[in-house]
Amino acid sequence: MQLFHSQQINEGKILLDETESRHAISVLRKQLGDVLQVIDGKGTCYEAEIIEANKKRALLEIRGQTDYPKSDKALHLVVAPTKNIDRIEWILEKSIEIGLASIHFIQCERSERKNIKMDRLEKIALAACKQSFTWHFPEINAMKPFKNFLDETREGNRFIAVCDGAEILLKTTTPIQNEVWVMIGPEGDFSPGEYAEARAAGWRGISLGEKRLRTETAALLAVAEINFIWQA
Amino acid sequence: MQLFHSQQINEGKILLDETESRHAISVLRKQLGDVLQVIDGKGTCYEAEIIEANKKRALLEIRGQTDYPKSDKALHLVVAPTKNIDRIEWILEKSIEIGLASIHFIQCERSERKNIKMDRLEKIALAACKQSFTWHFPEINAMKPFKNFLDETREGNRFIAVCDGAEILLKTTTPIQNEVWVMIGPEGDFSPGEYAEARAAGWRGISLGEKRLRTETAALLAVAEINFIWQA
Repeated sequence: MQLFHSQQINEGKILLDETESRHAISVLRKQLGDVLQVIDGKGTCYEAEIIEANKKRALLEIRGQTDYPKSDKALHLVVAPTKNIDRIEWILEKSIEIGLASIHFIQCERSERKNIKMDRLEKIALAACKQSFTWHFPEINAMKPFKNFLDETREGNRFIAVCDGAEILLKTTTPIQNEVWVMIGPEGDFSPGEYAEARAAGWRGISLGEKRLRTETAALLAVAEINFIWQA
Repeated sequence: MQLFHSQQINEGKILLDETESRHAISVLRKQLGDVLQVIDGKGTCYEAEIIEANKKRALLEIRGQTDYPKSDKALHLVVAPTKNIDRIEWILEKSIEIGLASIHFIQCERSERKNIKMDRLEKIALAACKQSFTWHFPEINAMKPFKNFLDETREGNRFIAVCDGAEILLKTTTPIQNEVWVMIGPEGDFSPGEYAEARAAGWRGISLGEKRLRTETAALLAVAEINFIWQA
């Protein structure tokens, strides 16, 4: 099943933007009267019939809808972007496929990358949501300094992954609450000062096992493990 | 810690091949008398001193060694290569980082890719082993037709992942034995015939959850989940 996305849904009509219109009408050759599945990213999937097969502004009329309830569980991933941007794009794509409520990028003392292109990440996120049937789109937040990030108060479990393996395994950390924050450092790890600050702010140090993991593998593994713990 | 690899370890001496010699001597500028960590891929990490700093054939003398016992658990991943070769390379790299005993590539009815370059995959695997401190290298097997693969008898749990979500969750499948096989299909999934054949051969259908996962995400998730179940 092919999903489309629109943010312009009003009074029983759906307008597709230029990208989605071109994909539906020019690429997939959908025609007047064809029914498309359109998601709003807020939990609803519409069945809608094409009433204007415009290649730049296709217009649809809603024929039905399915509402998907929001999960009572939310995983928030806080990650220092890797030097290689492909690896960040993979974290984003894979985390969305597996299950994620929000992603936050942080700049750390040892970060080699100082900026990320949000529009490219948003495109990747949208494609991953459509591909994986993610009805509630995750929040994607721009990069912030590590210190500013820590200052905000947050509910639920807050875990900071460390490389030295001396900390408790995520697996044996209980109870796991319905709101979980996981923070993953850059290639060179968090600095001792950053780690101490996070601990002082209430974040708990965890280990993901004995192997030395790349940033993106640690992030994916944490996302997989938390979702697995929550799985009914 | 930087690890080197050698297959030529004899009578207290280690010979590095051209690639590893160039990396140690030309790139990292290691000199006569420097001590390197060299792994054999079979569970031993040697400390060895450079006695001939040759850029093509560096020779080392063993000064000490650490032996890492082989785990009593073994995860075998059987996967249909994706059309996009990058995604297969990621499965390999990430699975090794997380934990894997062997990988097997299969060609299915709906496979879009008919061949893979083993030498490139072996290089990626070696880099991942060194990076993640994987002392026992996993077996990497060339592509086989699905049917030939099924004919071999295998011990332990044998799971085939299916997309329709009707099957039991991997999480609720017990007991998980010390030898686990997980089979992941191509982009278009296994054909009904292949699925029936696998079931008839004793493979059990499992689901990885409600989301629609790409081949490489399903593979990584299965590897993460089995390792998580096994984690002490």
